[in-house]
Amino acid sequence: MAASLREIFASRSVAVVGASKDPFKAGHQVVRTLLAVGYEGKIYPVNPNETEILGLPCYRSVTEIEEFVDLVVVCLPGKAAVTVMEEVERRGDVKGVVVLAAGFAETGIPENVEAQQRIAEIARRSGVRVFGPNCIGIMNPETRLVTGFHPGVRLVPGNVGFVTQSGALGGSLVTLALSQPKPLGFARFGHVGNMCDVTNVELIEAYGDDPAVRVIAVYLEGVRDGREFMRVAGQVTRKKPVLVLKVGRTESGARATLSHTATLAGSDAVYDGAFRQCGVVRVDTMQDLIAGAKAISMLPRPRGNRVCILTEAGGMGIISTDEVEASGVLQLAPMTPETCAKLTALLPPMAMVCKPNGYVDTSAAAMAKEFGEAMRLILADPNVDMVVFNSIPPTFLPPMDVARAVVPVIREFDKPVVACFTVNETVVEARRYLEENGVPTFDTPDGAVRALAILTRATFSTSHPLEDLPPANHPILDQAAAEGRHLLEPEALAFLAAHGIPILPHVLAQTREEAQKAAAEMNGPVALKVVSPQVIHKSDVGGVRLNLQGPEAVGRGYDQLVESVRSAVPGAEMHGVLVVPMAPPGPEVIIGTTRDPQFGPIVMFGLGGIFVELFKDVSFRVAPFEQEVALDMIRETRAYQVLRGLRGETPKDVEALADLLVRVSRLAAQYPQIREMDLNPVRVYEKGYAILDARILLDR
Amino acid sequence: MAASLREIFASRSVAVVGASKDPFKAGHQVVRTLLAVGYEGKIYPVNPNETEILGLPCYRSVTEIEEFVDLVVVCLPGKAAVTVMEEVERRGDVKGVVVLAAGFAETGIPENVEAQQRIAEIARRSGVRVFGPNCIGIMNPETRLVTGFHPGVRLVPGNVGFVTQSGALGGSLVTLALSQPKPLGFARFGHVGNMCDVTNVELIEAYGDDPAVRVIAVYLEGVRDGREFMRVAGQVTRKKPVLVLKVGRTESGARATLSHTATLAGSDAVYDGAFRQCGVVRVDTMQDLIAGAKAISMLPRPRGNRVCILTEAGGMGIISTDEVEASGVLQLAPMTPETCAKLTALLPPMAMVCKPNGYVDTSAAAMAKEFGEAMRLILADPNVDMVVFNSIPPTFLPPMDVARAVVPVIREFDKPVVACFTVNETVVEARRYLEENGVPTFDTPDGAVRALAILTRATFSTSHPLEDLPPANHPILDQAAAEGRHLLEPEALAFLAAHGIPILPHVLAQTREEAQKAAAEMNGPVALKVVSPQVIHKSDVGGVRLNLQGPEAVGRGYDQLVESVRSAVPGAEMHGVLVVPMAPPGPEVIIGTTRDPQFGPIVMFGLGGIFVELFKDVSFRVAPFEQEVALDMIRETRAYQVLRGLRGETPKDVEALADLLVRVSRLAAQYPQIREMDLNPVRVYEKGYAILDARILLDR
Repeated sequence: MAASLREIFASRSVAVVGASKDPFKAGHQVVRTLLAVGYEGKIYPVNPNETEILGLPCYRSVTEIEEFVDLVVVCLPGKAAVTVMEEVERRGDVKGVVVLAAGFAETGIPENVEAQQRIAEIARRSGVRVFGPNCIGIMNPETRLVTGFHPGVRLVPGNVGFVTQSGALGGSLVTLALSQPKPLGFARFGHVGNMCDVTNVELIEAYGDDPAVRVIAVYLEGVRDGREFMRVAGQVTRKKPVLVLKVGRTESGARATLSHTATLAGSDAVYDGAFRQCGVVRVDTMQDLIAGAKAISMLPRPRGNRVCILTEAGGMGIISTDEVEASGVLQLAPMTPETCAKLTALLPPMAMVCKPNGYVDTSAAAMAKEFGEAMRLILADPNVDMVVFNSIPPTFLPPMDVARAVVPVIREFDKPVVACFTVNETVVEARRYLEENGVPTFDTPDGAVRALAILTRATFSTSHPLEDLPPANHPILDQAAAEGRHLLEPEALAFLAAHGIPILPHVLAQTREEAQKAAAEMNGPVALKVVSPQVIHKSDVGGVRLNLQGPEAVGRGYDQLVESVRSAVPGAEMHGVLVVPMAPPGPEVIIGTTRDPQFGPIVMFGLGGIFVELFKDVSFRVAPFEQEVALDMIRETRAYQVLRGLRGETPKDVEALADLLVRVSRLAAQYPQIREMDLNPVRVYEKGYAILDARILLDR
Repeated sequence: MAASLREIFASRSVAVVGASKDPFKAGHQVVRTLLAVGYEGKIYPVNPNETEILGLPCYRSVTEIEEFVDLVVVCLPGKAAVTVMEEVERRGDVKGVVVLAAGFAETGIPENVEAQQRIAEIARRSGVRVFGPNCIGIMNPETRLVTGFHPGVRLVPGNVGFVTQSGALGGSLVTLALSQPKPLGFARFGHVGNMCDVTNVELIEAYGDDPAVRVIAVYLEGVRDGREFMRVAGQVTRKKPVLVLKVGRTESGARATLSHTATLAGSDAVYDGAFRQCGVVRVDTMQDLIAGAKAISMLPRPRGNRVCILTEAGGMGIISTDEVEASGVLQLAPMTPETCAKLTALLPPMAMVCKPNGYVDTSAAAMAKEFGEAMRLILADPNVDMVVFNSIPPTFLPPMDVARAVVPVIREFDKPVVACFTVNETVVEARRYLEENGVPTFDTPDGAVRALAILTRATFSTSHPLEDLPPANHPILDQAAAEGRHLLEPEALAFLAAHGIPILPHVLAQTREEAQKAAAEMNGPVALKVVSPQVIHKSDVGGVRLNLQGPEAVGRGYDQLVESVRSAVPGAEMHGVLVVPMAPPGPEVIIGTTRDPQFGPIVMFGLGGIFVELFKDVSFRVAPFEQEVALDMIRETRAYQVLRGLRGETPKDVEALADLLVRVSRLAAQYPQIREMDLNPVRVYEKGYAILDARILLDR
């Protein structure tokens, strides 16, 4: 049975294959680093040409080591690494291998690609777990284990678990964490390089089960299997926060496509939706990743999103307030009148108290004691969940005095407090003291607020399980597939209706007279729409006539339609003309599905019309999903403002719309043969909705 | 004649009134700081109760000092400060006064407000320029002059001119600048507090003329006179870049209003437009202000916006690329095929060269020499204007080797290069070396790109002069004003027409028959609109009927309209019903004007319909302005995409629309009696446009 990653992190002995006396070789540096950081386990250098390296006896091969070996670090490239894997397999005691060496699949050279495949095969067969190739492997400050090397990284124990898709960037992140006033330590670090065996998703899963890890910080460029990522992350986020810095936002989503949905589904937007769906908190910068990890690492969870800004300088206070508003998740705390009155009585006359509420500017005239008292009044207010404390201590007020005044007060309460003390040199000591006493500090007032915003998102994010529905067939899809075409509109409507989705009444007319008769029975203005397998964009070829009333208008419309389509698409097979009643006016939304290379079936929602193209104000989720996710995805867009009723309009049936999204998501998940689905537009009413056009394209 | 601010910055002697032996008093610290930093001029402590302070002879009053006094720092509050001002006036030699003490107008206490007014009066009368009260005054490293104190600020000479509206935040900014690997020095620093005399705008003006200042960095909470600010900044930005960190973005613009324009003109959006108009570059954070100032301080101006990313690690490269895209001003450099080929030949096989073009990932296998060569090839490419160089030097490659390899190459070219070397401790020396050799360094790859973006904006920003048009009268306005009402629609149309703005043909019908006759002559569908001084929002009371054709429809529409308005607004005076032909379809925009408390007449532009409310996708400019500004303001919104032709639509007449904006801006500027103007919607065509509704509200 394969060892758990947790066991590998706890390895009590490491063999370094390719160990060297040459200080410019990786094989030298790995051994030297293990010695330098004081690895608690045993180190076995392996090199057939040496008898001793850095004072340690050297082995000719891993098979020659007579003690137990938990972990093997391979610094040899290509076939040599494969040979080491074979030897490792023969030993039978090795739990994990880190292939540090580069020069495998990433080169694209067949020989090297094959070497990596061989390593992966042996891993699978033997149960030995392999990190890499082309990686810096793992670090564990508990046992002082390091398999790679990164300048500046020190092994400071902490509760952050790092997962990185770039060794260099991962090292930078750890160093950024370590350069905080009180170094922010870590529990685990893992870089998986080419992922021939262990994946970044597995690392997240392992950290999820590891009590040493309180918060998981991930640097991500992409995932191989989006659904697997969501399943794992969705489980882990129920136990502890997962912060992700996903880069590559501008990765071009320029895939050839026939629908809006696929055009807009540049994979980054899909990642956004997937993260929300599984409770992962996305951050924008390296600093925010560390700031968020630091806040979660050090602070209790807030009970709500109401933050009070306690500031000694107006400028910093305004910057904090701007950021509270920009965060999209925090709000200024509506403190009680009693708190405001007591603060007013306490603070100097120049102070600005509760203007606006949740904002307290003490002015530079306040002294240390007053900061302590003010902090107590604020934290005691039941309407305050968190505090941002900004201070630029004036010369006559030593920063340490301010810090010492607030720390005991903060410790009395179980509420998150962050601080921004500026500036640099003069407040270093105070910042360290604050952090040593559980108050994280940040370089700028906006950075401090962003850290609280990340903490709050992490606290209140929800994770929704992702189902995999068994693939299904349907006669309508089968028939179209057999005829090598997409669904015709009446088929698309029938398909939706067969799955409990309400559709408008409609008649497929084969002649002018049938159209007139159908229109007469509909008793009101109608629309005519061509039905032809050769016509996908009906309006573009004059295949739609709107708002026709009376036999004469309907007849004329029918003739014009047929004429237009014939001349625009010569030889188009006409299966008839769809007659549908004109739907009452209402806000129009678009619902679409497509298949994402990473995440499989996905659903898009947004306002219809040119909004979609112009503002890209759409949301994505991975299919299938439930009502709550559908409601989230509606609320995420500005469409929600329209649906709630803009300019005094009546609110629309958001619940019914969410139900439609849920049903569509299940269709997308159940029928892999559907490539794209577009319900565009869907008009939403006070009660229910009307699907005005439905297009279903099949994989061919 | 009043002394120039430049003369005051060059003061050769300073009297400190309220000097003290008590180290907790400001009057002590000012003298101590001047001594500590080594002020080159003479220092005269003034205190009637002491004979000596910190080893300097003490004077009983400023009048007793027998030498020339250039500058007086007043540490006394209220009436005592007024007395000092009177003495200063009597001396006749003093050029400037810094009133450090707080407790004046900012308290709102009548006595204190009056003291400030008295100081201002004496300043105006005597020509002595006063900074403050309630400020930390000025700093000039050239003569080592400091009138205030801020912990951590050192007097490092440089070419940045700081203007700040918050002493505390200004001090923090300077300290942030000083904490760069090579401290970023400054030429001038000024904090003007309550601005009873010298304003922040005057400081900007003074720095504009001061050859010691290369870039002006401003922390701004608001300006008192927006037009004066624009006139000054508009002049200064032609000489040197002005960067502004304007806070208070979320300041509520919730003023009672009747039009969209005023609702959306939350003053922050107006500041945005005003900054663009006068060539000021707005930045978002304290770090960006310093990063931008540093880039401008150290680098040559780029010849274009094309940036090449040279990176040693993929992760950092992707972050840089994301930021290039997000900057909205930079683009990846389209390097020549020759450059790409040479780079491919030079760099290790694992390097990613010109994928995409403008992006070069050397891989960690590159050595120092290759970085130097690659830098040379890139800088020599005529399609490269700037370079971002990211490096995480691996352990075997000392960061200093990399820095030493690229510096001589960079110095051969006159192109801006910025660097991001991570991480912290291990690259401190290399970063300092780079900065000492003209290559600014930044903590993160995105920060480095943002600095180049600010440099580029500052280089290519344009400044447009702001005219003040003499106020004018117009009989249409006069008559409405005399009758105490706003303009009726036919009057608004006539007023526009009188100023060369094309309007649609229209007839004011008094009866059903007149309406039918007018409609018949228009020969096509018409709209009817009620004309009544009591009805401003016509649609809300059924006062608009659209798309009526034929006498019967027009007659019925007329009756229904009159009926609706009568029942919705009992007693409304009906001046008639406007008959207008239905305009052909086309994209709809909104143009509005209002009066801003800081900037006076302003103009708003955006897409019409619910876009305005939902996406706030509008732009503002200060009136009046010329065609180029109008085109900028159109291009700034997504409306531009629509007007250029979305989905293969024909491009619309943007020039005509810009001309309309220019004309509207002149009306807003010329007629102060117009409170708000709304042209909403305006339909734009391939040739020209149609104003479908015009509303002009007067100040009453």
